[in-house]
Amino acid sequence: MNSRETNPMPHVSLEIAQQVLRSQPFSQQLGADLTRFSSEGVELRIPITERIKQQNGFVHGGVVSYAADNSLTFAGGLALGAAVVTSEFKINYVRPALGQVLVARANVVHAGRTQAVCSCRIFCIDGEDEMLGAIAQGTIVALSWPR
Amino acid sequence: MNSRETNPMPHVSLEIAQQVLRSQPFSQQLGADLTRFSSEGVELRIPITERIKQQNGFVHGGVVSYAADNSLTFAGGLALGAAVVTSEFKINYVRPALGQVLVARANVVHAGRTQAVCSCRIFCIDGEDEMLGAIAQGTIVALSWPR
Amino acid sequence: MNSRETNPMPHVSLEIAQQVLRSQPFSQQLGADLTRFSSEGVELRIPITERIKQQNGFVHGGVVSYAADNSLTFAGGLALGAAVVTSEFKINYVRPALGQVLVARANVVHAGRTQAVCSCRIFCIDGEDEMLGAIAQGTIVALSWPR
Amino acid sequence: MNSRETNPMPHVSLEIAQQVLRSQPFSQQLGADLTRFSSEGVELRIPITERIKQQNGFVHGGVVSYAADNSLTFAGGLALGAAVVTSEFKINYVRPALGQVLVARANVVHAGRTQAVCSCRIFCIDGEDEMLGAIAQGTIVALSWPR
Repeated sequence: MNSRETNPMPHVSLEIAQQVLRSQPFSQQLGADLTRFSSEGVELRIPITERIKQQNGFVHGGVVSYAADNSLTFAGGLALGAAVVTSEFKINYVRPALGQVLVARANVVHAGRTQAVCSCRIFCIDGEDEMLGAIAQGTIVALSWPR
Repeated sequence: MNSRETNPMPHVSLEIAQQVLRSQPFSQQLGADLTRFSSEGVELRIPITERIKQQNGFVHGGVVSYAADNSLTFAGGLALGAAVVTSEFKINYVRPALGQVLVARANVVHAGRTQAVCSCRIFCIDGEDEMLGAIAQGTIVALSWPR
Repeated sequence: MNSRETNPMPHVSLEIAQQVLRSQPFSQQLGADLTRFSSEGVELRIPITERIKQQNGFVHGGVVSYAADNSLTFAGGLALGAAVVTSEFKINYVRPALGQVLVARANVVHAGRTQAVCSCRIFCIDGEDEMLGAIAQGTIVALSWPR
Repeated sequence: MNSRETNPMPHVSLEIAQQVLRSQPFSQQLGADLTRFSSEGVELRIPITERIKQQNGFVHGGVVSYAADNSLTFAGGLALGAAVVTSEFKINYVRPALGQVLVARANVVHAGRTQAVCSCRIFCIDGEDEMLGAIAQGTIVALSWPR
């Protein structure tokens, strides 16, 4: 439907995207890993440990929202290049996040020259099961501030 | 306009709310503190350190979204009691977050029996200045899952 | 992923859903038609006429948001039955809406007992072309008010 | 906090804004009127008639979302000039809309050079009462497409 969806700009490789992720101290704190960055979309993984939980033993909603924010930003990077930020997003939590790994999968829905609308789904991997935990959609913009 | 706004249910005190926050391992990781929980609304503070930043030296958007998520949840708690979760929210980032402290201030916009719509603004305190960094609004629901 | 997605509650038929649509005076004003209401999802069509446009000759964003709101509500009805309302939604416009017909296609992303998270895409049919105009996601709740 | 908030660009007057509204066929269909367009914000009024209702006698959510979309756009116009569109918004419905008049009041939360984040509240006037019906926030961008 949009050429950017099937043929993202080739100038950001998985290696470069991983390097960007590694240069985010907060993502390093969380142990986040970028396991896909291609025309198929973006996949961001976060190991579920005690320290990212809330009071009931589930992954804190703020960690899930981090996964949405960051996977959307990287999806925007597929279309717009490495210098992008998330301008806004919306998230619906559908189930408490449990298990061993949080996986966010994001795609470009539509890309213009300076902004892209992206969507993502966040899953919890619990043993053999993969359950939907949240969905999000948002706008990613090419830098620079101020806009 | 709504009696819940001016007269929140009295059964959750600042002390109890702080105890809930302290029982969230992820909030402890971030050094988050609840500095207001009253009919005036909720205030959540997070010290800005290197480890919550992204690659350009700003606070990671995921931390700002955590501040939105959690301050909205606590605001919902003003109206609905301690057993609440954020069902969904939307955030607009308006400026890169810089400075010494991130402050999220949230209020109840409207409360029903089982859910509350809340809004929040997230500021960066940088020396004497306080700058708006993001705004958010969302729905908080009284537990329990499944809904 | 969710049994409700592939096997929606059977008690609302396309005919009943169309009857609900016909009992909405505003939808009648717009000439809206429900062309699908099945496990495949919901499809709502609105003929593009001069009177639903804005000042630049495009379909007014408010009509596109109506299409989002209403198709999401009907999608919620697939999972929750006929007595549902949209509690909240978020829409991203990706392209000015032009052409002969506006088509909103909505699906259930996740359904609980009393609420469903649904998503939709709104397309413009212009001759042979079908272009994405907007995407939306939101929460639909089973009545009754107050909640 | 932002000079644009207290001192919007003076080059769009209430008269010009009303002229823009009158040039929107869909807004004319709804009988919408712009009753404020100043540094205080924007006020858009829609008389509640049978033909804007849904099946239960309430104002259709799609009309409320139109009021959000359009009042946000005009609020963006306060900061960015007359050539603006709503890029995205999110709405929470808090109460069924009833009464004689729907009133949307929107303000600029933050404005940059090319986009503004705005928020609005939508009220129902029913006799002497004014009740909150919905709140929304969104991004308004200065034209031109494509972005």
